[in-house]
Formats: sequence, C-alpha cells, structure tokens
Amino acid sequence: MSTNGALNRKLRMALVGGGRGAFIGRVHATAAVLDNRAALVAGALSSDPAKAKESAPDYDIPEDRAYGSYKELIEKELALPETERIDYISVATPNHTHFEIAKAAVEAGFNVVCDKPLTFDLAQAEELLKVVEGSDVVFAVTHNYTGNPLVRQARDMILGGELGEIQSVRVHYLQGWLRTRLELEGQKQSSWRTDPSKSGMAGCFGDIGTHAYNLARFMTGMIPEKISCHLKTFEEGRQLDDFGHALLHFDNGGLGTITASQISHGRENDLFIEIDGTKGALEWRQQDPNRMIYRENGKPHQIYYRDPNAPFASPNHAACCRTPSGHNEGYLEAFGNIYCAAFDAMIQRATGESFEKVNTLYPNVYDGVEGMFFITQCVSSSEEGGVWLPMKHPKARP
Amino acid sequence: MSTNGALNRKLRMALVGGGRGAFIGRVHATAAVLDNRAALVAGALSSDPAKAKESAPDYDIPEDRAYGSYKELIEKELALPETERIDYISVATPNHTHFEIAKAAVEAGFNVVCDKPLTFDLAQAEELLKVVEGSDVVFAVTHNYTGNPLVRQARDMILGGELGEIQSVRVHYLQGWLRTRLELEGQKQSSWRTDPSKSGMAGCFGDIGTHAYNLARFMTGMIPEKISCHLKTFEEGRQLDDFGHALLHFDNGGLGTITASQISHGRENDLFIEIDGTKGALEWRQQDPNRMIYRENGKPHQIYYRDPNAPFASPNHAACCRTPSGHNEGYLEAFGNIYCAAFDAMIQRATGESFEKVNTLYPNVYDGVEGMFFITQCVSSSEEGGVWLPMKHPKARP
Amino acid sequence: MSTNGALNRKLRMALVGGGRGAFIGRVHATAAVLDNRAALVAGALSSDPAKAKESAPDYDIPEDRAYGSYKELIEKELALPETERIDYISVATPNHTHFEIAKAAVEAGFNVVCDKPLTFDLAQAEELLKVVEGSDVVFAVTHNYTGNPLVRQARDMILGGELGEIQSVRVHYLQGWLRTRLELEGQKQSSWRTDPSKSGMAGCFGDIGTHAYNLARFMTGMIPEKISCHLKTFEEGRQLDDFGHALLHFDNGGLGTITASQISHGRENDLFIEIDGTKGALEWRQQDPNRMIYRENGKPHQIYYRDPNAPFASPNHAACCRTPSGHNEGYLEAFGNIYCAAFDAMIQRATGESFEKVNTLYPNVYDGVEGMFFITQCVSSSEEGGVWLPMKHPKARP
Amino acid sequence: MSTNGALNRKLRMALVGGGRGAFIGRVHATAAVLDNRAALVAGALSSDPAKAKESAPDYDIPEDRAYGSYKELIEKELALPETERIDYISVATPNHTHFEIAKAAVEAGFNVVCDKPLTFDLAQAEELLKVVEGSDVVFAVTHNYTGNPLVRQARDMILGGELGEIQSVRVHYLQGWLRTRLELEGQKQSSWRTDPSKSGMAGCFGDIGTHAYNLARFMTGMIPEKISCHLKTFEEGRQLDDFGHALLHFDNGGLGTITASQISHGRENDLFIEIDGTKGALEWRQQDPNRMIYRENGKPHQIYYRDPNAPFASPNHAACCRTPSGHNEGYLEAFGNIYCAAFDAMIQRATGESFEKVNTLYPNVYDGVEGMFFITQCVSSSEEGGVWLPMKHPKARP
Repeated sequence: MSTNGALNRKLRMALVGGGRGAFIGRVHATAAVLDNRAALVAGALSSDPAKAKESAPDYDIPEDRAYGSYKELIEKELALPETERIDYISVATPNHTHFEIAKAAVEAGFNVVCDKPLTFDLAQAEELLKVVEGSDVVFAVTHNYTGNPLVRQARDMILGGELGEIQSVRVHYLQGWLRTRLELEGQKQSSWRTDPSKSGMAGCFGDIGTHAYNLARFMTGMIPEKISCHLKTFEEGRQLDDFGHALLHFDNGGLGTITASQISHGRENDLFIEIDGTKGALEWRQQDPNRMIYRENGKPHQIYYRDPNAPFASPNHAACCRTPSGHNEGYLEAFGNIYCAAFDAMIQRATGESFEKVNTLYPNVYDGVEGMFFITQCVSSSEEGGVWLPMKHPKARP
Repeated sequence: MSTNGALNRKLRMALVGGGRGAFIGRVHATAAVLDNRAALVAGALSSDPAKAKESAPDYDIPEDRAYGSYKELIEKELALPETERIDYISVATPNHTHFEIAKAAVEAGFNVVCDKPLTFDLAQAEELLKVVEGSDVVFAVTHNYTGNPLVRQARDMILGGELGEIQSVRVHYLQGWLRTRLELEGQKQSSWRTDPSKSGMAGCFGDIGTHAYNLARFMTGMIPEKISCHLKTFEEGRQLDDFGHALLHFDNGGLGTITASQISHGRENDLFIEIDGTKGALEWRQQDPNRMIYRENGKPHQIYYRDPNAPFASPNHAACCRTPSGHNEGYLEAFGNIYCAAFDAMIQRATGESFEKVNTLYPNVYDGVEGMFFITQCVSSSEEGGVWLPMKHPKARP
Repeated sequence: MSTNGALNRKLRMALVGGGRGAFIGRVHATAAVLDNRAALVAGALSSDPAKAKESAPDYDIPEDRAYGSYKELIEKELALPETERIDYISVATPNHTHFEIAKAAVEAGFNVVCDKPLTFDLAQAEELLKVVEGSDVVFAVTHNYTGNPLVRQARDMILGGELGEIQSVRVHYLQGWLRTRLELEGQKQSSWRTDPSKSGMAGCFGDIGTHAYNLARFMTGMIPEKISCHLKTFEEGRQLDDFGHALLHFDNGGLGTITASQISHGRENDLFIEIDGTKGALEWRQQDPNRMIYRENGKPHQIYYRDPNAPFASPNHAACCRTPSGHNEGYLEAFGNIYCAAFDAMIQRATGESFEKVNTLYPNVYDGVEGMFFITQCVSSSEEGGVWLPMKHPKARP
Repeated sequence: MSTNGALNRKLRMALVGGGRGAFIGRVHATAAVLDNRAALVAGALSSDPAKAKESAPDYDIPEDRAYGSYKELIEKELALPETERIDYISVATPNHTHFEIAKAAVEAGFNVVCDKPLTFDLAQAEELLKVVEGSDVVFAVTHNYTGNPLVRQARDMILGGELGEIQSVRVHYLQGWLRTRLELEGQKQSSWRTDPSKSGMAGCFGDIGTHAYNLARFMTGMIPEKISCHLKTFEEGRQLDDFGHALLHFDNGGLGTITASQISHGRENDLFIEIDGTKGALEWRQQDPNRMIYRENGKPHQIYYRDPNAPFASPNHAACCRTPSGHNEGYLEAFGNIYCAAFDAMIQRATGESFEKVNTLYPNVYDGVEGMFFITQCVSSSEEGGVWLPMKHPKARP
C-alpha cells in the first residue's frame, strides 16, 4: 500500500461513537488503520460520558484523549499543538446526531468521515453541505461497498463505455435480521434503527436502501430523473419501514429498480446489482465480492476476479487490492478503501496541495446530500401511493 | 411413470403448428410422449398446407393424417371411428391464431393443450373460456415452468403454511436474445414475437412476463389485488416492448415485483423467483432447476434437491420425477409434467369419471384468461404512466 | 434433430431388461425415442418370463413381441420379415448377463446398445469384442455422460489443441446412496450392484469408476500408461468396494486421479472433472451440465454454456442440442445423444454405407473392453497394495 | 474482540522479514494488529541491512528499532527494559532462514510466530522443537487457513462426533501462478520458492501442500498412518516440484488424498476440502470461506455460514468472528485469528498463568515439525516411485 508520502507521518483519527454494544464504530477504527496510514488517538465513544471513558481502553485510546463528549473532543483537540492534534473525526453514531457532530467538526477545521445516511433529514444535510462548501475540509461518507475492487472495476468499465448505454439497473439489498421485533428485546442495533426519533424518516430504506442507491449511482454515474417508491412495514407495531421498492427513470429512458428488505428470512447482507447496457451486462454480489460476472451475447460468460496483477484489472481495481488474487478480501478491506481515498485528499490538504472535492473516488458530502434526498423522495412518494417525484438534486455530483 | 390405467391405451395427439423453423412445436411433440402415455398421430403443422405436409415426416406423422389446415384436421378426425380418433389437440402456433384453433377444437369435443399466452387478446380469451365452460373438455395451457418438481415442492410448502404469510414475491425473467433487431434478419422466432399483429399487444411481457406472473401465482396461490406496470422498448424501431417491470399489491399488504427482459446481454433463459414469508423464504432458478434454496433465520440455509425418494420431497414433487436425484431433469421433463397432469384428467374424462376443472395441477384455461388479463392490465397501466389497475379477474382461479 | 434420412423410417428397438423395479431400462427406452428416430417394438423385459410379459404394457410393447427371454426374442425376431424385424437390441440387465445377451444379439446380426460395464469380466469382454469384430454390427456402450454437449465441446477443444498439452486430469464421481447396507433391505438397484456374482469383481469402481475413467478418456483422448488403485469397502459386511481411488500415469509424465464413492453423505450423482493443460484448464460437473468453466492465467474465467447457436459452440456441441440455451437439457438428453450417434452408424449400415467402427463419437465395444480392463487392473492393483499395473490395452482405441 | 485482559496493554511485536517486494511480511503486520491487541514496534525487515532500515517507515517502525539483522534485533531488544521490550517475534522470511532466527528468538526467551513451513528441513525442525520444549515460550506457526471461523466450526463438529467416523478426506490446493517460469523473470515470490537452496526439498508441496495437509489434520484430528506421494515438475528446467499428489492411509482404514498444484491455469488460491463421515459429510472452500456445506443422506443440503450469533455456530466459530454474518471476512481475518489464539497464550505466559502447549487452537511447533515430516516423507516416497512411508511422527500432537 502507498504510504502517506509527503506527509511523512500517520494521520491522527478521533472516533465519535463506537462505545460498548456498538457495531460500526469498531469497523471504522479497524478499517481506518488497516494500512498503517492512520492511528486512532482520541475518541468520544459514547453520548454517555462515563461509558465513553470506559470504552476507551477497548480502542487503546489513552485516558487523556478519551473525551466525555464530541464537544469536549473538539475543544480539547483544538487546544493541542498542531503536531499532536487529530486530522479527522470519524462519526459513527446513530443518524440523528450526525449533523451536529459533523457540523461542529467541519467548523473546527477537522476533516470528517461520516457514517451514512449523512444526517437525520434533508434540511440538515443541505445545511451541512453549505458548511462544508464554506470550509476546506475533506468530507467522506462511508458508503463502504463502493470500496470493493470489483465495484471500482465495474465503474471503470461502464464510465469507459465498455457496456454501451445503460438501460436497466437492478439493485437488491436483502437482510433478514429484523424479521422479528428485535427492537423490543433491547438489542441496541435494532433499537435506534427502528426509532424514527433516531433513525430519521426511513428505516430499511435509510439504513440499506441508501447503500443500494449509492452503489448504482457510483457504478453507472447516472442520476435518475425521477423516482416512485413503495415502503412497507411488515412487522406489526414497528414505526419505520422494514421493506421497500423504488423505481427509477433515467433521462435516456432507462429503468432502475431498488428493492431493500430487512425481513427476508436467512438473508445475511445480500447486496446485489445487475446492470444491462447495449454492449454488455454485469452483475456483482457483495457476499461474493471478489468476483463479478460480465456477459455479452454470443460469448462465454466472463468471471472477473479481484487480481491486482491481472491484465484486465482496471486502474481503480488494481490500486485498492492488498493481496494477490484468491486471498479473500472483504468487508473491512472495502471499508478501508474508502478511508484510503479520503486519506489521499487529507494528505493533499495537509501538504497544501489542491484536491478534488466533487468528483472524488470516495463518497463525499454531495453523495450524502443526494442520499438524504433519496430517502426524502422515497418516503414522500410512498406516502402518496408511489407518485413520481424528481430525483435530480441540484447538488448531486454530475 | 404411471401408465394410463383404466384407459389401457395411449392417448392420441394432434399437433397444430410446429412446421419447419418452429421451436415450440417440437417441444410439445417430444414432451407429450416422454412417458409413453401418448402418441402423436396427426397434425396440421403449418398454416401453409404444402409446408404442413412436408413437415409431417419429421414427426413421423403418416401422410393420411398430415392435414393442410386445422380445419381439415378437425373435420377428418371427427370422421374417424372413435377408436382411432385423436384425444387432444396441441396448439403450438403464433399467438394470433390460438383462439380460432382452440375454439374449434373445443367445439368439436377435443381436449386441448394450448401454448401461452392463451390468445391474441383478452376478449378472445374470455370468449374461449365460455366455450370451454360450455363443454366437457380438458383444457391445459403450457406454463411449463410450473412442471418442475421443485416448483411443485415450493407450492406444497407454501400452501401448507410452512413459509407463513407471504409478504414479498420477486420474479425475474431475463433473456438477451432480442438485444439486437433479430427480427430484421428473418429469424422466425423473433419475427412473429415482435409483430403486434401476431403476438398481440405485448412483446416481452406477453412472451415471458406471463410465465413469470403465472409462476408466482402457482407457487403462492395468491391473486394480486392491483398492478402497476412500465413497459419499455429499448431496441429502436421495434414495435413491442422488450423489457418491463410490474409491481403487484396483494390484499395482505404484500408486494410483488416482476421484471422481464429480452435485452439483457448474455442472459439465456433466466427465470428466477424469490418468496419471503413470515416463517421462511425460498428461491428457485429455472436454469438450476433441480435445487431450491430455503432459508430461515438462525438456521443453516437449506438446499432442497429434486429427489423422489427423499423424506422431504412433497407429494407433488415426488410424483413428477423420472430419475433418481443427481440425474438432471430439465426443460423437457417439466414440460412433460404439464402434459402428464392433463393426461390424468383426459383419462378421467375418457373413462367417464368426474374431474377437476378449476383447481388443477396443470395450468388451465382460467390461468390462460388471467394471463391475458395480466397482459392487458400491464399494457394499459404502462400506457398511463404506471397507473394502478385492478388485477383480480372474476374468472381467476381462487 | 436430423431424421433418419436415407433410411426413411424409424429404427426398431428391442429392450432386454427394464422390467418392474428396474431403473436403467426405462432410461434406455425413453432416451432412444426422444427424437422420434426409433420406436420400441419388442422386449424381453425380465429374466422371469412372467414378469417380462407383465411389464410389456408399461412400455407399450405389443403382446406378441413381449418375449419371455432374450433367446426367444432373438429367435422370433429373426423369423420376422426384414421390414418388421428389430434393428437393434438394448441390453439393460445386470452386468453378469450382458455377455451372453450381447453375444447372441451380435451373432444374430442385430446392432447392440449395451449398458456399462460391458461384461462380467475382462475375458468375456475380449471374447465379445472378437465376435463384434467378426460381424458387421454397430455396437455402442452407454457411457452416457459423454453425450453431454459441453463434454463434447471440451473434447473438441482439447483434441484441437486449445488447452495445450494435458498434464493433470482429476475426476471425482461421488454418490451417497450406498452409505448404509441398502442391499439388506431388498432394494433391487443395490442388491445386484453389491453382489459379486452379478456385478463382477468391482462394486463402486465397476458401476461409476468406469464412467469416470471413460469420461477422462473421451475428453482428453489420452490412454494412461499405468495405473495404481486402492479400493475400499467401508460398509461392514459388504462384499464389493464402495469407495476407491486410482492414480494414472500418462506417457507425457502427466498424472491423473480418479476418486469414486458411493458412501459420501448427500452426494447425489456428482461426476466432476478437471483438466489442466499447458495453455488452459477446464472443469465440468455433471450436476450442472449446461455449463463448463474454462480458465487461462491472466484472463477472466470463462463460463461456456450449452448453446447450439453460439459462435463458440464446437461442431459436436452444437450438433447434439435440442433446445436453445437456458432450456436445461440433462441426463435423458445426454443419454439420447449416445443413441443418436449410434443411430447414424446403424443407418449407414442399413443403407449399405461404410461406417467408422473404432473412432466413433459414441462409446463402443473397444471402450467397453477398456472399461473392463480398467476394472481388472484396479482390482488387481488394489489387492496388491496399489502396485502399478499397465493400463494400455492392446485393443484400446488410439 | 476480547482485549488483552489481565495484561492490560498491547503486546509488542517485532517483524523479521517483510522488506520491500515481500508479500507475507505485510500480512503478518496487518493481521497481528487487526484487533488492536498488539503493536508492531520493531523489525529486522531484510537480510540486507540497508534495505531493512529503508523499509521500516512502511511499517511505521521507529528508526531506533529498525534493526539491520535479526541478531541485532534480539540483542538490542534484550537490552531494553522489560516494559518496552518486544513480546514476540514474527518470522516472515524465506524458509531456509526460519531455523536460525526462530531458534535464536526462543533462546532469548521471545515468543515466536513463524511462517510455514517451519524450517528448511526436518532435522532443523526437530532441533528447533527441542529448543522450544526446553523453553517457556509460545510458538505459533501460521497455517493461517485454520483461522477461518467455518474451519473451526467443522473441527468442532467433527471432534464432537457429528459426522461419525471419518473415512475419506480429500484436499485440493490449486494455483496457477507458476504455470510459466516466472522465476526467470526476477519475480521475488517465485524466485526463492522454486530455489531448493532457499525453499527446501519441496516446492509446491512445501509451499501449499503443507497447508492442505495441516488443514486436514486440524479439521479431523486424525494422524495418517502412512503416506504415498508422487511429485511432478511440469515446467521444464524448474528445480522443485510444481505439482503433486499424496495418498494417506488412516488407522481406521480411511483414505485421504492431497492434490497440490501451482500450474493449474486460472486457479487463484483454491484450497478445497471434503470430508466424509459415517453420519455426515462436509466441504469447505477457501475462496468462499464464509460458508460450508454439510450433507446428510435424505436431508436437504445445509449451508452453514459464518455468523457469530447463529444458534448453530460452535464456540470456536463464534469466538473468532469480527462482524455479523454477510459482512465478508477473509484472508486477513483468518490470519489474525491465528495471532489471537497465540496472543491468549502469550498473555497467560506474561501474567504467569499456565498455558497449553500441545493441544492449542493455533498451529504450533509440533504442527510445524509434522509439516516438515510430511514434506520429507512426500519427497522420499516420490523419489522411490510412491512407496508407502510411515506418517506418524513421534512428536505429532495426538
């Protein structure tokens, strides 16, 4: 892996969220340091100050940088000399707290890596975007599945025209873990994700529908013109959707579909995408991430595999592999690849170089805003029986 | 395989259609006789009398029963003594001719096995249904995929309540062969299928969307309450849809989706169904027909396989296997299983027993009418931008 | 499918074996007539004359040609005028009876399609070969798996040099059905297969090891120089092997392995072959017969699929498909393809044309002898602790 | 993940090997710290002192602990106060140097994590074992594939008797990367691996055959009684084997086979194992590591999947998962799991607790010795035409 080059030191990370019982905080902490390009040096690991401090040893965060709140974190880190101060803050808290944390971090001049969805609602997202645009920070959003080498291969192929014009995109993201009212049993992950005061206006579509949408956007580069959506709550008494289906119309007449479910028995984390173009078609499945199937009429189907040394590997594929082919890379590595791309920008910023803010390889704040717009339009459309609503947000990346 | 029991002879079949260049006629002829329960003894193999007669030797049909038209076939067969006369007529012609042939056959008292979709339009289908209801004939429609042993296993499991309440049904039927304007090259299969004067009001959705719909209906037993559809014609200049997506609402709040494509590069004949219930979920893929995946949260995923001797094999599964497990059965056998179920009824009729006409194991004229209703509602919905239309036809089987 | 051309009639088949409780007889009867090129007109369906006659109606064999023994069959058929007389006899009886039946048939001038293994022991096989060589009959042996279109594709590719020099061949044939002493429960299939007086000197290796060997021979065209084998009987009290492993040395230094098992829990009929060449490598699995994986370093893996119209389909692949791609063909069709190739030769014989007897597309009596030699050498080698024995039989086809 | 408990600090790691151009050193460095239980603080990254020091920044090793040789490393680390001194040394150098480095480390009292195969030859391994037995160090060998959660599940099931008596074990480890003389092109990985002065007496069988053997040993717990092997060098001019096949006899009459190849086109890193027991059978494939297939006659095949929360997850499976099911874990995580198990023992040692040295969850020095014995017997057997040699080493773990 590339080191941090001109920066000549590791980037310093602070983690907000991730205290005991959390899931995604640990993932951020592990993925960010996977390549030895960053070190976790500070944290505000819980909104409960006592728990925040108790959790610090789990992450090897020294006591004096184990803060009781994100506010304390920002204040105290700003007070440190620049040579010790953190470079970025990773926000791994429930959705409803992203905005205030991320906004404060940006305003303090820290780079941010924020979990998805970006904020609690669209208004917050648009407000946050303004703040980011008024700053010079690097702002990444962890739509982590775009970090898979073969997702990047697919994108390179599609943007390079190999599939021709794209006419159908079908994305499924199927899980089964909310088939029962797990949230009634005090399971932390399900509790906040099914609570509209914490998760926002959408449940399943906010949590995983946004990943599905973002994956399609990333791989094809196409912005849908309009969207129609039907959300369902199949588990009685649950306050948010646990299933949904959206239809997308593209300018070229193409049709997209997104199905997301959290009530499909036995489905683990089954994110699956199929893309049909006039010249070729492909499919990729997150649970089998090291291969991708490419098809053309009249030719044998082709299985592309993760292989940094293969002649067929596109630049963005080859660049984000850590091991030779056949040595399975998965969830953590893909997550780490989002960090790596953001690190490159952070280093450019830190060393005074100019850096791309819109068309980044990593999902950024524009993608985050578009994700919130997606949620908003889906919920609005669904509430009105699936009415078509525009999907082109003025701030969507081109 | 069971023999023809009380009938104590083979059933006598006539084939209409299937002349040189045809595809499905040969399939009918082979599948029907697979178990030695029927013999092809007569035919009107083409609408062109000369070609009809020329094609007869390909099917080993004797010259004196190689008729120049279906009318001649019916007239001459009726004139034969009952001990020689055909028992049933298989209709394997382009869609626009099904009605007149089937109607004449029924009115003459012959059993009918008709290819799908049932007729050119819904009015014809409803008219034909009346004729059938006024008769005593057995009338089967070859939605052949329901003849797969594991499709029947799935149905037995679902109707038996093993999956609980069904909340999501997702069907995809993907092909790639019409990715180019094959119809301009004089290829017979594509020519009539893309011609609205022969195929009817729908292309892709008439040809394969109906199979997808029927499969969902057969496996779940559920009738959708309403439907919304978007059809597309991606190949410029083509007159009928070559892609489409329909959304189904069920009474219980469940949601169904049907995607059919003929423009997906490299997809051969990929009919795939996933069904989510409150207790379990399953998936089955036509191109891998001898297995079915069943999932329940917290348990290993289970691969059911075709095996007439397995303790887990449901009665309708076990009854339609011809070989032990691991001896791949496929398209022809499933097609043959539709015939077998229809044969059972024909024998009951011939031997004077009463027989079920509505809730049959084989797809019947009611299913055919519902298929035409599906096409009609899809096209109408699509023409009005995907408006929701009712999907419960008064004649749909319960 | 091609018709019988110059012969201008169906071939007439007699079946020996196949009475009630049998498995492979029905397969012969169905596969042989799949393309309407033959008709089953006579039979001696059981060694028990009463049962033989009782079983005839199951096959629609008229009473006057339902014979009580193969001897009667041959005698009476010879007495019929040539225009009615059978063309060939299919031998679908337990192994120990093949020799006398096949020999008598050949001596009477009838073509023969004999199940495998060819005979009870090698001496019989060599004797039978002499008889066949002294005759003008067509003699096929149903190593049915070589009838799969993609097996023939693989062979065409290998013999055409596309894989380069072959250095490793690995074949597995795994079943689980004899995991328990099924033979003690009166199950007919297991009873004779585990009885050395009926099955011959080998059990598992005679029944399925020979298929595995033949498949490797057919696909690669290479004759092993020597063989070392270890047979096992894992089920206590069983008299014949139910598991075994053989190692093959080829002249070019290449190594082959054959593993056959009837005691592998849950394995249905899992015949699997992998072939490594200097230029490319492939694998094919009988339970997924419509695809084959081909690999070359540095290129995406390629999935070849059964498709008579694909540009990549080799002549022998395209010629034996009955339906377009995606319409699963399986066990019966492959079995039927053995018959088709034999029919072509029978027609050549019947119409007085010369025909190939050694390098046939269908497995022939030379392959049958080689199969018996394989069994003999395996058992001998195993009895002596795996000693290496020569594997080139003087009569092996080149 | 569990933290370091009573130790209350990270373990301190030194890496020997891993300089620029290396592969496995980086893997050790990443896997060891994946859970924040250890930190890489020192290294002797190359046998070339200048290169060793140049490579240090890539690993974030401070200059003062970037040593020019392993001897310097040991000497200088011993001179540090115990509170700073490394806890263990990871040996990630070519095979011929393992012995001297590991021996010196053990003699200095450092724990060791050594790459496989353990040493250059068996004599060294046995000598090293004596040294380890005379010490109190933890000594792990990175047969990393045993760190996969489902490999441990399989072992738990087998040792718990769920599969009954094991009768057949089949392991394949197929790669294609040495299909050409890559070593002639100066590629570092291939150069030493094909050089008998660095790799030892075996090539393919030393590099990956040992993994295959160890996997079978770990999963079944069974020691083969004797072994017969055939090694091949298919690439002309290569000095070591690039392909081989070994046959194993077990005391209970069971048969094992190991096939390893580095010349199979397009095979990436395909380690695959099948195990047949009297009650059940399973298979696991390294390239699809998050699932395992379990089969029993008469039941649907079962796909076990990695899921720490599943009721079916065995203790050793659940304990080594980092993420929920469906979040692919792969090569690095499995490698890290070897470290984790070794860490537990290192902590026990460091805190004065007693700890298991023979029957460890991690592969240990006894497994390393057995691996060298395996290589030795394979090469000896192969040189004598596959003669059977004993496989029970007196020091093999029971």
